Amino acid sequence: MTIPPQLDIKPVLLLGPGPSDAHPNVLRAMATPLLGHLDPQFLSCMNQVQDMLRVVFRTKNALTLPISATGMAGMETCLVNLLEPGDRIIVATAGFFSRRMIEVAQRIGATVTVLEQPWGEVFDPQQIREAIAKERPKALGIVHAETSTGALQPLEEIGAICRETGVLLIVDTVTSLGCVPVEIDAWGIDAAYSCSQKGLSCPPGLSPVTFSPRAVEAMERRKTPEQSWYFDLTLIRKYLGSDRTYHHTAPISMNFALHEGLRLVLEEGVENRWTRHQKNHHALKAGLGALGLEYTANPKHQLPQLNAVRIPAGVDDVAGRKMMLQEFGIEIGGGLGDFKGKAWRIGLMGYNSRPSVVLLCLAALEQVLTRLGVKVAPGAGVAAANAVYAKQS
Amino acid sequence: MTIPPQLDIKPVLLLGPGPSDAHPNVLRAMATPLLGHLDPQFLSCMNQVQDMLRVVFRTKNALTLPISATGMAGMETCLVNLLEPGDRIIVATAGFFSRRMIEVAQRIGATVTVLEQPWGEVFDPQQIREAIAKERPKALGIVHAETSTGALQPLEEIGAICRETGVLLIVDTVTSLGCVPVEIDAWGIDAAYSCSQKGLSCPPGLSPVTFSPRAVEAMERRKTPEQSWYFDLTLIRKYLGSDRTYHHTAPISMNFALHEGLRLVLEEGVENRWTRHQKNHHALKAGLGALGLEYTANPKHQLPQLNAVRIPAGVDDVAGRKMMLQEFGIEIGGGLGDFKGKAWRIGLMGYNSRPSVVLLCLAALEQVLTRLGVKVAPGAGVAAANAVYAKQS
Repeated sequence: MTIPPQLDIKPVLLLGPGPSDAHPNVLRAMATPLLGHLDPQFLSCMNQVQDMLRVVFRTKNALTLPISATGMAGMETCLVNLLEPGDRIIVATAGFFSRRMIEVAQRIGATVTVLEQPWGEVFDPQQIREAIAKERPKALGIVHAETSTGALQPLEEIGAICRETGVLLIVDTVTSLGCVPVEIDAWGIDAAYSCSQKGLSCPPGLSPVTFSPRAVEAMERRKTPEQSWYFDLTLIRKYLGSDRTYHHTAPISMNFALHEGLRLVLEEGVENRWTRHQKNHHALKAGLGALGLEYTANPKHQLPQLNAVRIPAGVDDVAGRKMMLQEFGIEIGGGLGDFKGKAWRIGLMGYNSRPSVVLLCLAALEQVLTRLGVKVAPGAGVAAANAVYAKQS
Repeated sequence: MTIPPQLDIKPVLLLGPGPSDAHPNVLRAMATPLLGHLDPQFLSCMNQVQDMLRVVFRTKNALTLPISATGMAGMETCLVNLLEPGDRIIVATAGFFSRRMIEVAQRIGATVTVLEQPWGEVFDPQQIREAIAKERPKALGIVHAETSTGALQPLEEIGAICRETGVLLIVDTVTSLGCVPVEIDAWGIDAAYSCSQKGLSCPPGLSPVTFSPRAVEAMERRKTPEQSWYFDLTLIRKYLGSDRTYHHTAPISMNFALHEGLRLVLEEGVENRWTRHQKNHHALKAGLGALGLEYTANPKHQLPQLNAVRIPAGVDDVAGRKMMLQEFGIEIGGGLGDFKGKAWRIGLMGYNSRPSVVLLCLAALEQVLTRLGVKVAPGAGVAAANAVYAKQS
């Protein structure tokens, strides 16, 4: 074959559902020369990564670490470590990613009860309480921030119900961690997984997970071994614990990157980061509204970091996204599952949640919509966003 | 908590069993700003990665791609996609990594027959033939280059036996790919997995795998779904195939790195790379011999890229490695499993297989051994290596 030349990437501003742009400091950390996975400098880096993850997850859980694969691997890790064949789980599903939880749980041989809400809606704690009373499951799986719809599921009451009934609460925080409040301990979450490439502004490749003492006890009471060797936390924690038993070779560079990504979160302050996401969301939302774009999620439960809007009638999904990418170097996301071809998803995550990104996105969208035949008041999007920023300052 | 400062890593020359140093071009590629996982530029990068992997694996296999996790995930991918509960597999084991294959296969519910050889030895094809005749398994699992012992398992005849008897041949090429001949098609290998951080001189985080048409047919004839969702090749190949169905978010930066790592292999030429590994091994071997260090593997089957030697009597394993690391910034590996505390493992892999590395390693080892009380003829290691290089040129 002809040897391809070195990659010569035309830069793209990543405003889809993720990956979002990595912070420039994080990219620099990625180029750090490697260390061995048992090198004292690397082990110290990993200790700090675990400590910082606990701060970001708002937990004291000892078992808090990054799984050496992407976010979906975190989902599999939580489920294979907590479920055995025949165990009962309720999966609350109102979007694409919770549907995946059903499939992963079924492959373990668990008995899955599916609780459904329309896409874009969230669950009422009462529904969850009734389902638990009826099914008496070992675990409840639910998505905190549903990337396919842009809806945020409140978890505090659901956490209390799970504690009360002795059910393990397993939560997908892939799109929420680092963007909106995630309170593992205060809400009584037993197992959660996330990713590196959204709110933490790192490249994709790691999946932070955290297990409560209750979840660890459940793991220790298992009668059968975890079906996955690679995702077996009983083995992985021996590497990250004091005995440092070799399990697999940790992705060194990705952990250097996560160290820097987490450091940046802590420097900003976890709560300040949540506020920043809200502020930029309000500006974007005002702008999108002025451009005539409607959100798909119930406004009461709208995520600030993932803005899913209906594509205007007569506008071609692919043509619009292609124009954004080719003319402006901006990636926005298409719809997933039920929303395929019907929604655009605009992410303002981590580093990318900032005013210059909001204004550029609205300005470019105005041009794209106009060229695709939508009537838009000239400058309306940017003006609306700027008005919101003026009030905030 | 106190926010840790930015990482400030003291560089280490990685001469252990892996990770080995990433090539400087690869580190630069790691810092490339991200793209979306469906961006046309990224999809073109992935197509080229797959094409280049086929060249390096010496195969026409359509199903050739990097799994989004480390080498051990490649092992799990091969086994979970090819084995169903109740299937029979023979695992030929003569070291640490083949023992892991047993455990992964058992967790699938496969019936495992273990064929053993002493650590450091290899299997005779006749042994394999007899075991297959007796057990009639679906698959045979074997390690090509055993990282724990430094032994290279010849595979050509074993491949022929597997073809003849209709057995699927699953091979661990974690330590061999990019260092010594790996001939997937010519040897009749049905499934192989490797890693990014050894012969390919990239950071750890990806596991290239390749499946023969025979292996793909076996996957398609399955009666039960793969127990792992994350490692399900039936789903993964839809993302890397023409329909680009979303499965997981590919680790973008790691794939940029692998693209560059593979490009460097192709620019050098796969066969030239094998020769280079041999040349530097001969020089190191002569030097280690002059320092009085004996190999643990049978010399007939010695890997050039992983030189496992017995620690001299009276020398403390940890003290020796610590001195190498602290005084010279060189990491060498300790022994694994049966060889723990008894062997050192010196890797010359990919970018690190070069004369300056060989000479520095021998010079530093001379000082360390002398300080630990071993009588070594001054300069003997370096002189012996230089004599070999003189003959080669």
